[in-house]
Amino acid sequence: MSIKKLKYWGWGNTDEGLTNKESDLLLGTFAKKFGILPKNKVKVPKLDDIKLPTTQINLPKSLRSICKDDPLERVLHSFGQSQPDSIRIFAADFDHAPDVIAYPENEEDISAIFDWAGESKIAVIPYGGGSSVVGGVTPDVSDYYTGTIVIDLSKFNRVKEVDEVSRAALIQGGTRGPDLERQLKPHGLTLRHFPQSFEHSTLGGWIATRSGGHFATLYTHIDDLVENITTVAPSGSIISRRLPGSGAGPSPDSFIMGSEGSLGIITEAWVRLQGRPKYKSTAGFKFTNFFDAARAVRAVSQAGLYPSNLRIVDQTELLVNGAGDGTFSLMVVSFESSDHPVESWMHRAEECCLDNGGILDVDWRSNDQANMEGAVGAWRNAFIRMPYNREELTPRGIISDTFETAITWDKFEEFYYAIKEATSSAVKEATGKSGVVSCRFSHAYPDGPAPYFAFHGEAFKDGILEQWQIIKNVASEAIIKNGGTITHHHAIGRDHRKWYNRQRPKLFGEILNEAKNHLDPENIMNPGVIT
Amino acid sequence: MSIKKLKYWGWGNTDEGLTNKESDLLLGTFAKKFGILPKNKVKVPKLDDIKLPTTQINLPKSLRSICKDDPLERVLHSFGQSQPDSIRIFAADFDHAPDVIAYPENEEDISAIFDWAGESKIAVIPYGGGSSVVGGVTPDVSDYYTGTIVIDLSKFNRVKEVDEVSRAALIQGGTRGPDLERQLKPHGLTLRHFPQSFEHSTLGGWIATRSGGHFATLYTHIDDLVENITTVAPSGSIISRRLPGSGAGPSPDSFIMGSEGSLGIITEAWVRLQGRPKYKSTAGFKFTNFFDAARAVRAVSQAGLYPSNLRIVDQTELLVNGAGDGTFSLMVVSFESSDHPVESWMHRAEECCLDNGGILDVDWRSNDQANMEGAVGAWRNAFIRMPYNREELTPRGIISDTFETAITWDKFEEFYYAIKEATSSAVKEATGKSGVVSCRFSHAYPDGPAPYFAFHGEAFKDGILEQWQIIKNVASEAIIKNGGTITHHHAIGRDHRKWYNRQRPKLFGEILNEAKNHLDPENIMNPGVIT
Repeated sequence: MSIKKLKYWGWGNTDEGLTNKESDLLLGTFAKKFGILPKNKVKVPKLDDIKLPTTQINLPKSLRSICKDDPLERVLHSFGQSQPDSIRIFAADFDHAPDVIAYPENEEDISAIFDWAGESKIAVIPYGGGSSVVGGVTPDVSDYYTGTIVIDLSKFNRVKEVDEVSRAALIQGGTRGPDLERQLKPHGLTLRHFPQSFEHSTLGGWIATRSGGHFATLYTHIDDLVENITTVAPSGSIISRRLPGSGAGPSPDSFIMGSEGSLGIITEAWVRLQGRPKYKSTAGFKFTNFFDAARAVRAVSQAGLYPSNLRIVDQTELLVNGAGDGTFSLMVVSFESSDHPVESWMHRAEECCLDNGGILDVDWRSNDQANMEGAVGAWRNAFIRMPYNREELTPRGIISDTFETAITWDKFEEFYYAIKEATSSAVKEATGKSGVVSCRFSHAYPDGPAPYFAFHGEAFKDGILEQWQIIKNVASEAIIKNGGTITHHHAIGRDHRKWYNRQRPKLFGEILNEAKNHLDPENIMNPGVIT
Repeated sequence: MSIKKLKYWGWGNTDEGLTNKESDLLLGTFAKKFGILPKNKVKVPKLDDIKLPTTQINLPKSLRSICKDDPLERVLHSFGQSQPDSIRIFAADFDHAPDVIAYPENEEDISAIFDWAGESKIAVIPYGGGSSVVGGVTPDVSDYYTGTIVIDLSKFNRVKEVDEVSRAALIQGGTRGPDLERQLKPHGLTLRHFPQSFEHSTLGGWIATRSGGHFATLYTHIDDLVENITTVAPSGSIISRRLPGSGAGPSPDSFIMGSEGSLGIITEAWVRLQGRPKYKSTAGFKFTNFFDAARAVRAVSQAGLYPSNLRIVDQTELLVNGAGDGTFSLMVVSFESSDHPVESWMHRAEECCLDNGGILDVDWRSNDQANMEGAVGAWRNAFIRMPYNREELTPRGIISDTFETAITWDKFEEFYYAIKEATSSAVKEATGKSGVVSCRFSHAYPDGPAPYFAFHGEAFKDGILEQWQIIKNVASEAIIKNGGTITHHHAIGRDHRKWYNRQRPKLFGEILNEAKNHLDPENIMNPGVIT
């Protein structure tokens, strides 16, 4: 949990990362399979060499004991985990670094920071685990502000109460995934919300960004697991009633979920838990045609089986990640239960896959290790290591990013072609060279999938940020134009704001802005995000 | 569909109602089992005898072709289906009758009505099927308004588009349950949202009030079935993007769902459909202890089985409805699927019931008619006929009403006692005589049930409305004080407003009011409801 061990140039702690072998494999695959060649590796800027802006702010005495402003703290809180973040880190571009980082211990501390920041026109950036891949915690704010304070919630890290009867817990907003699960474990319960950022992201961050987790169907977003929320805003607190369900007016929680720190800070929430799974089953199916795999996902989604995992990965994405040879797409189906064996469920899901042209790759029958075997296991391993790839790619001039969306089934095939074609063309246009675009499904609904795209390209040496932006613009434009959502679970942040404004109904945007004025009259909360 | 056949004094059409035999049985049960005696039946006020207020409004020529103001129309749109509505109808209290009823044919008509109403300070009451049991469509508005216009959406009655691939449909807001299902049937699809009001309620009304439907678990509220919403407000239209899932900022749809006509009119929505069920299975279990039955519901809810029906009815409620002898509570469990046999699911649910002391009453094994047999069938029949009871009871001075809520499992038993005791005492206090209070579960979640209470009492001859209000106040107070929600699916309307204001976080209420000012600057939309 100690923040001191965190990298400021990439994912995770300083003692973690790709092994040389993994790195060689990754770069080798890009070079050999796709002609994407690495440049000489730019070095991580040393802390002493990073030029931080001179602080203009005058922190009141009363706040000093909960604040830090040493260079490492400021550097660590200057970026999230997006591709532009990574590019700017390796370019030692820290002009926007926050002035000070606060570590409040209670809600009164937060209110005191708000009061001071409001009077002093200081922008406030709420910070959970810092894992935003969309610029949600990157404190780039306008000149209107006289400074920037990051509120790091890492001291809000407790499971305060567990209700074993209702299977729910009251958990503080700054609690990271592993800390939260560790505190729930003695109760035999689990939240089972495992976004790829699980280790370095927090419950409050998940709720603020409508995070997508472990479950590929049914409880896809953290939204579905929220019983109530306590939000501290500059104007006061919003505490919704803890309920299993309600029909009393528009949901107050739905107004906070997705507000991304622009309305207030989520200090705690009651969330729904699951029994720890006793029965698990995983199967893998190969498809020569990605759309056949998609049809199998649709069949399972519409069958009312609610698998915990239901993901497909296309030929290209398997190839990039060393989990396939480019000849097949992969489907992974898992069921889990704390209550009952899951064979009946898996039997029917298997039929749906076979009916749509799938070939059993990893058999689930009497196979506890199915999730570790074959293409399924290879993909799983690549998936776990994926967040470490970027710190090897960016400094070698390789653009590598992902974006995700959702679309109804009727439009999916056309949508897939449109996005893939637009993004591929943009990579070539921006970098002068063909790159690679791949797709998987992260989540699936009865009425449509959540396609997750990745793109990679060899950038011109100079202007890598601009090259990335060209591709991002084209991909985002294609999503909005073709009926998708600008994000299914990565959130809006600063990077998606422009397209979010177009997706959001105009009058609803105006209502959100008025709500912002009401809750945050000095307009200090995470400026540039959502409102 | 012809509105002319509707009763103005009770549920359904004029040619429907309890048979003499059913009526005798109902009254006999009240008298013999509970000592609740009927008075001489007050007659339904004749249309000619109903004194309607003189209209002060000056309808512009351009709107006349879509409006009606004859006495029957005004009487039919004067009330919903609440207990106070019924009491006032039999008291011929139509002082608040609307001045005019509009039947818009398109969104332009609605906007034209808004424009005129805004200029003329005319209150606008959106009207779907008129089935509100909480005063949601009862046009009781303040003297601020110079008149009242009801917008009856019955011409918005079409399924405009069916997407069989995604299993979704674009349906107009005024489409009633049976009309909607009839139009979906040729596609082999169904919405399967069957509130008790199904025949005389509409999709737009369901969405506006966050209606609870057929499914006792999982897809409990219409909310879960909504892909997008088109809302026409006085300030303009809000059209959300049609998506299977999204994480792009706070949900615009969640802000409209539960707004109960106070922000605008829902003209159409894309909704998620189900395949028509091919496999169905129902079982019934008797429990000598209601809390054992509740524990069985909890076990099934937390097992991840997602039955379509999972309801328990207490001893008293069975007795009232002639489905039990007062010695047992009943549990009904049903599974249904368009895709696969449901035996494995039912097997496990049965174990949960037997483990908690249930005794199999109606066996599901090889029994297509299980839902028609034994106590299960008797309860089902009573449930279907229930809406017709009131027109027999109110004119005989018998108060008979229901209210519903939700609570987490940890608090349930204490909550149940508190509500039951408070309501029983209030019946005695208000009417001077013991009545009867019963409970069932309408819906169930892994973290808590949605208890549904009924109360009945023999009123003093005069002041029946005041007697009802005393009981309602006490019951509502007890719900709020003990941590429940003032409504799980009946909505707020005018009757729950006072307690809703206390349940709703204060700052969220202020945001809603500002949103109201923005969407409805002349404050004409369903005044007194929500905002």
